[in-house]
Amino acid sequence: MQELKERIRQEGRVLPGNIIKVDGFLNHRVDTKLMEHIADEFARHFDVGRITMVLTAEASGIALATICAQKYGVPMVFAKKAKSDNIEGGLYQSEIFSYTYKKKVTQILSREWLNTSDKVLIVDDFMANGEAVRGLCDLVSQAGAELVGIGIAIEKGFQGGGDRLRGMGINYHALAVIESADENGIVFRE
Amino acid sequence: MQELKERIRQEGRVLPGNIIKVDGFLNHRVDTKLMEHIADEFARHFDVGRITMVLTAEASGIALATICAQKYGVPMVFAKKAKSDNIEGGLYQSEIFSYTYKKKVTQILSREWLNTSDKVLIVDDFMANGEAVRGLCDLVSQAGAELVGIGIAIEKGFQGGGDRLRGMGINYHALAVIESADENGIVFRE
Repeated sequence: MQELKERIRQEGRVLPGNIIKVDGFLNHRVDTKLMEHIADEFARHFDVGRITMVLTAEASGIALATICAQKYGVPMVFAKKAKSDNIEGGLYQSEIFSYTYKKKVTQILSREWLNTSDKVLIVDDFMANGEAVRGLCDLVSQAGAELVGIGIAIEKGFQGGGDRLRGMGINYHALAVIESADENGIVFRE
Repeated sequence: MQELKERIRQEGRVLPGNIIKVDGFLNHRVDTKLMEHIADEFARHFDVGRITMVLTAEASGIALATICAQKYGVPMVFAKKAKSDNIEGGLYQSEIFSYTYKKKVTQILSREWLNTSDKVLIVDDFMANGEAVRGLCDLVSQAGAELVGIGIAIEKGFQGGGDRLRGMGINYHALAVIESADENGIVFRE
């Protein structure tokens, strides 16, 4: 997606450790107009008329997933990080390793909001190792729901998460795949 | 706001400890159409034509704040809980007590995205003790920005956060103020 790549080129910064900082428009300050364009782009790729919900993971995926859900006319559901006491029993749970927090995190999702009749589009702002999305897929599988597809705004292609999903025959689509990011700049996969 | 109160009456549940569960439409599964109506309601109360950004706190406020920002044509910024290594220096920080997590939490916000020229509308889905909003106000104050107002969807009126803000002369507006919530049901403040 050309508009997204241009924003990354113009406003993205590479920090030590191959961290790509895009927090001016994607995951700290959010440009909702860009989110709309991303949602439109996903709608060209996925059969969004079939889905019953958009699923994402707390926290930074919520903004994009909200705009997607709004556009497609379905609810947005986000898996929470465990620990809140506001969620009683009846949960799907998946354990993932968070590279951001450098520890195991348990994603939880109330069984009330995902079941066998659901057709799910998973959306997230960013994919690196793909742990968050792996956990979300696991939640969908636990529920016996149908995974319609996975839409990612920015994939760090060099960290393997996206390629693993492509190898599994999932309808996976990332709008900007970054092949390398270092002191020489950001290179996209063509 | 009548529509919101009706949804709370119909779908809300009271859990032990005066916890009000509205996770079917507000903070786990999100009804984006309702978020639009809430955003429209805020727009009747606040001078949203003046604001330069909508500010909220991670995580459950993000969905509502995103729809508000989209409607008002400004960016949405969310304060993060500290610990991520994706944010370098140059931060505003405020320490709050999270009753959900039962511990101190540090909210952080990059100085890049909030400064003296900003006119800020704080938005959150829920207010109980008001710690999250107190922290957000502190971030706005640190930046020397102008606080235009604070819009909350649901206030737990019996926990004092909202009344404290009203006493401070802030332009504070909550769309549904719950006076009591127990085994006898939910009563709204009139």
